[in-house]
Amino acid sequence: MIIVMKHKASQEDIAQVTKEVTKFGLMVNVSEGSEVTVVGVVGDKSKLNSDVINSLSGVDKIVAVTESYKLANKKFHPDPTIIEMPNCKIGGKELVIMAGPCAVESKEQLFESADAVLGGGAAILRGGAYKPRTSPYSFQGLEEEGLQFMQEAKAKTGLSIVCEVTSIQAVNTAANYVDMLQIGARNMQNFELLKAAGKTKIPVLLKRGLSATIEEWLNAAEYIMSEGNPNVILCERGIRTFETATRNTMDISAVPVIKSKSHLPIIVDPSHACGKKEYIASLSKAAIAAGADGLMIEVHPNPKEALSDGPQSLDPQEFKTLMEELKIIAAACNRTLL
Amino acid sequence: MIIVMKHKASQEDIAQVTKEVTKFGLMVNVSEGSEVTVVGVVGDKSKLNSDVINSLSGVDKIVAVTESYKLANKKFHPDPTIIEMPNCKIGGKELVIMAGPCAVESKEQLFESADAVLGGGAAILRGGAYKPRTSPYSFQGLEEEGLQFMQEAKAKTGLSIVCEVTSIQAVNTAANYVDMLQIGARNMQNFELLKAAGKTKIPVLLKRGLSATIEEWLNAAEYIMSEGNPNVILCERGIRTFETATRNTMDISAVPVIKSKSHLPIIVDPSHACGKKEYIASLSKAAIAAGADGLMIEVHPNPKEALSDGPQSLDPQEFKTLMEELKIIAAACNRTLL
Amino acid sequence: MIIVMKHKASQEDIAQVTKEVTKFGLMVNVSEGSEVTVVGVVGDKSKLNSDVINSLSGVDKIVAVTESYKLANKKFHPDPTIIEMPNCKIGGKELVIMAGPCAVESKEQLFESADAVLGGGAAILRGGAYKPRTSPYSFQGLEEEGLQFMQEAKAKTGLSIVCEVTSIQAVNTAANYVDMLQIGARNMQNFELLKAAGKTKIPVLLKRGLSATIEEWLNAAEYIMSEGNPNVILCERGIRTFETATRNTMDISAVPVIKSKSHLPIIVDPSHACGKKEYIASLSKAAIAAGADGLMIEVHPNPKEALSDGPQSLDPQEFKTLMEELKIIAAACNRTLL
Amino acid sequence: MIIVMKHKASQEDIAQVTKEVTKFGLMVNVSEGSEVTVVGVVGDKSKLNSDVINSLSGVDKIVAVTESYKLANKKFHPDPTIIEMPNCKIGGKELVIMAGPCAVESKEQLFESADAVLGGGAAILRGGAYKPRTSPYSFQGLEEEGLQFMQEAKAKTGLSIVCEVTSIQAVNTAANYVDMLQIGARNMQNFELLKAAGKTKIPVLLKRGLSATIEEWLNAAEYIMSEGNPNVILCERGIRTFETATRNTMDISAVPVIKSKSHLPIIVDPSHACGKKEYIASLSKAAIAAGADGLMIEVHPNPKEALSDGPQSLDPQEFKTLMEELKIIAAACNRTLL
Repeated sequence: MIIVMKHKASQEDIAQVTKEVTKFGLMVNVSEGSEVTVVGVVGDKSKLNSDVINSLSGVDKIVAVTESYKLANKKFHPDPTIIEMPNCKIGGKELVIMAGPCAVESKEQLFESADAVLGGGAAILRGGAYKPRTSPYSFQGLEEEGLQFMQEAKAKTGLSIVCEVTSIQAVNTAANYVDMLQIGARNMQNFELLKAAGKTKIPVLLKRGLSATIEEWLNAAEYIMSEGNPNVILCERGIRTFETATRNTMDISAVPVIKSKSHLPIIVDPSHACGKKEYIASLSKAAIAAGADGLMIEVHPNPKEALSDGPQSLDPQEFKTLMEELKIIAAACNRTLL
Repeated sequence: MIIVMKHKASQEDIAQVTKEVTKFGLMVNVSEGSEVTVVGVVGDKSKLNSDVINSLSGVDKIVAVTESYKLANKKFHPDPTIIEMPNCKIGGKELVIMAGPCAVESKEQLFESADAVLGGGAAILRGGAYKPRTSPYSFQGLEEEGLQFMQEAKAKTGLSIVCEVTSIQAVNTAANYVDMLQIGARNMQNFELLKAAGKTKIPVLLKRGLSATIEEWLNAAEYIMSEGNPNVILCERGIRTFETATRNTMDISAVPVIKSKSHLPIIVDPSHACGKKEYIASLSKAAIAAGADGLMIEVHPNPKEALSDGPQSLDPQEFKTLMEELKIIAAACNRTLL
Repeated sequence: MIIVMKHKASQEDIAQVTKEVTKFGLMVNVSEGSEVTVVGVVGDKSKLNSDVINSLSGVDKIVAVTESYKLANKKFHPDPTIIEMPNCKIGGKELVIMAGPCAVESKEQLFESADAVLGGGAAILRGGAYKPRTSPYSFQGLEEEGLQFMQEAKAKTGLSIVCEVTSIQAVNTAANYVDMLQIGARNMQNFELLKAAGKTKIPVLLKRGLSATIEEWLNAAEYIMSEGNPNVILCERGIRTFETATRNTMDISAVPVIKSKSHLPIIVDPSHACGKKEYIASLSKAAIAAGADGLMIEVHPNPKEALSDGPQSLDPQEFKTLMEELKIIAAACNRTLL
Repeated sequence: MIIVMKHKASQEDIAQVTKEVTKFGLMVNVSEGSEVTVVGVVGDKSKLNSDVINSLSGVDKIVAVTESYKLANKKFHPDPTIIEMPNCKIGGKELVIMAGPCAVESKEQLFESADAVLGGGAAILRGGAYKPRTSPYSFQGLEEEGLQFMQEAKAKTGLSIVCEVTSIQAVNTAANYVDMLQIGARNMQNFELLKAAGKTKIPVLLKRGLSATIEEWLNAAEYIMSEGNPNVILCERGIRTFETATRNTMDISAVPVIKSKSHLPIIVDPSHACGKKEYIASLSKAAIAAGADGLMIEVHPNPKEALSDGPQSLDPQEFKTLMEELKIIAAACNRTLL
């Protein structure tokens, strides 16, 4: 941590900062510049309250030198984390495709989707039973009945299953049914939910918040991990920007940035990122080429009748065609796809 | 709702759209342009699934003409909502100031804050008992003990009290202690939490999400109101942009925009918006001049020792001075301040 | 300047950094932390190429401690700059209102506007002769003829006049007519244009770029000032964000931030910031309360027939009413308005 | 164009809108809804001033149905544009790589770069002679001498050459030396510069502005094309967002969006998008997989001594390695790379 003093900071100000830092057993290194003085802090900063320092007279700003996340940090865990699922591994050489409808609408719709997903070569079936919707008047999901349908689809196909959870109660219920819990973008900083997911030990797919920095995203992963659950998969799904041609702006750079800062696997969700099916093939290929460990893609047996997110869903034939194209890119990137 | 067809949409495409819309009892008005055809939809759109329409062949985009929120909409409730608190009203001629520490740290710190807040002329004491923090290693709040201290501070000073809630359980606990529940920016789209707050009937202070549009914010209010709780106060606290000179960018325009679209009161939190105490006076005056119904300001008896958000907290003397200045602006705006 | 080394930086890396810095006569202060080493640099950094340092092996990042602008910096010029115009001063106790049509359309339209502006109490007439328009098929301005009309309006009313310039040639032409040159948001980093405006010594109104940070904005001012023209007035006109309820997001915090970092006057343009006339009164009051030195407001004798930006223009009566309201706020802020 | 009336618009308001539209020979189609009335406009909107309409009493908003750019629009030019360069074609099956130093610093540095670029398999040498820099105290380029060095490098290697131009004068000078003019991000809406580049007929590489929407970017291309120069190549180089882990956020979706809306070729500049050399390989592969027609990559013989943008430059060996990797991806995408 570096403390930058104001232009006119006095010797008393500097002495006060030094006193505050050293009382926690940390060491300081004062460097007087021609314009400003800078105080470097050495030692375990977790004992220090940076807000206290920031409030001291004469302090201009504090610059963090080390990251606030530890368990998610590649520095302390250089090898990539590989997460074991019933029928696949995430984070290794094999790419993992999660596919299925945005919302579970009925047993028939889900089973048709599961067949399409299996046929295309996906390993994990997605399907929302608890749906966070902007308006209270939109379809909100089948809840536990949806989870039951998911479990039946798993029994029928052998696919692993992932469902979004939107409350602590939903975490507890879903834990009885699913192979992976999904935390959605709107709940990325719902810290109580993160802690509840952390207590389960079930793999957690953590979507990036609409306006979350990568640093905040890794801190959200840290909340899950610090409860004893190391099985976190990050999912880039687009960030909010000024551009309106796509629903969100897919931050493809998040893939190499996460790979340089963390050991956790990262997948990409092009469906939510762009919101239009015509761009999904292009963005899926880009994600794999950038180094993602997998994709999450919306597939619906009949997108025109989907109760949510129809415009961004592929139909079974489109999904199959896309998967064929992705295999070629995967091979060129030295990755495998079932 | 207006459905814009693609450049090359066929007569079959248009017929299919018409069929889909009219089967819900709505009427269409087809307008063929030189380049594109546009289909206007008349009637109760709540029966219609716009995603289905969007997925139909030949559809380019859908333009919403009416807002998705009803209860929060000024169109259907032209008179401003005035919310009754034990010791004041929010949304009327009188400006309401909510002030206090970011986090309740101890009984002493809170009582000192309450005295300062009362002395300056605030009507409502704020203080966090449940703290949503970016890092799991930061101070997380005193929880129920903090609520008890708040209640004691109320008994001592006569101030109303407001506390943030971060889970359904916290809503249920806080409902026994506070006069107003606060939903924080990170939870603005935690819909389960919104519904739980809606069930209590206690006034709810709804902070705007870091990257929430005004439309989404009003839809979040709709979640609370649709559960039977009409007592929602909106709070602008800065949005996330590219600018880093301030912690967030305070969207002052939100004040007149909310006043034109909704009947709900709106207050402004300059402390979280800018993150630096030196800008708070300027932004507080701006908020009142723009037409806000009140302010939320961080006050701490000793900001240098605050366990969270110290740099943006005023000390009791600074708060008193600011309040004196604000009275002059309030009078110039034909509003009153205690 | 602080150089933060990577986690695994070697002693050779640190030695190389030290060598590179000291060869320009600067001094270093190496601080070895438990996780990373930090190198503080003391001396005149203008000799140093930070990109070279950033490229060295083992360097993680560079943190700037001092600002790159000098002439615009309050540190080296603590007293506020007051700019003398023929009929007023900008940056002192008196607030200066610049008003008029977005574009000069005809002599009649301009003269009517000038009368309205004078009648309302503005000191400076604005009117665009060179219009930067997003589409090449939109009205582009009357060019030199527009400047002549402006000069005639000045002779008739005694108002000072300001016009936007969009090319070096326009700077040279306009310099013969106007009292103030305006650099528009889209040209804020058109550095050749800034230099040309700097060479004239005529006061320059520098609008903030749509996505310019305050730091970049002050550096743009520095370009003008470094050519020998100290007469720069900054103009906040809204930044681009995700919010679409207003045309841009007016960054009200820019007012106190500029006041803390620079000695230059700052005015606010609520018309372009929000794009809708119904919000202008609210935002104008907010700007004055925040501490702005003036306003730029669009006024058109007949907004319904304006060739550009009609929806955000006030008519003469609306302008007069607004000015009456602003006088009350100005007085409450201890400022005067004619 | 669709005109949405306000909730309370009167019959007189609607009649006035109809009158205003039809006086330009356009037709209207009035659709009265349960809440609002909508007026569809059919015919050549270029005659209509939407600002006039927007200012009429009772008008809520105008929704554009057709794009404002014509020459750049795929609707009117369905086949992709292929641009002929002396030694390659841009927009066809072959991918084109433009590489070289950010700034031309000396003949030696440029010649070494040119050799590296040629050796790696690039077709076009880039090198800045006019440098737009945020601070006036940074290196500003060698100007015409730099152009001469570029021409010599072309003679020596057979590479085509591209240089950025920052003023009309620079356009006129550069037109004597280069095969392609580059308009930088900061000048994307410097409309006078666009027109000057349009008059030359030389191919123009048009970088996307830092906060430009894709619609604005295509309108900027329209400025060049409407002067008679159809040879525009678009270049995505990252947009400004809240994320700070990368210099800008590379908008990979711009590739498929441009391909669906325009016939112009699009290339991607990962160097400026991310600002860090360690992410360039990942982003280059993603761009090709997404369907880009080429890349612009910074290569410097000795990045550690580059006078600008060193941290994002590859050295000759790194460039060669990257090109080998890209050939594999290109083949998987059915594109060729020399």
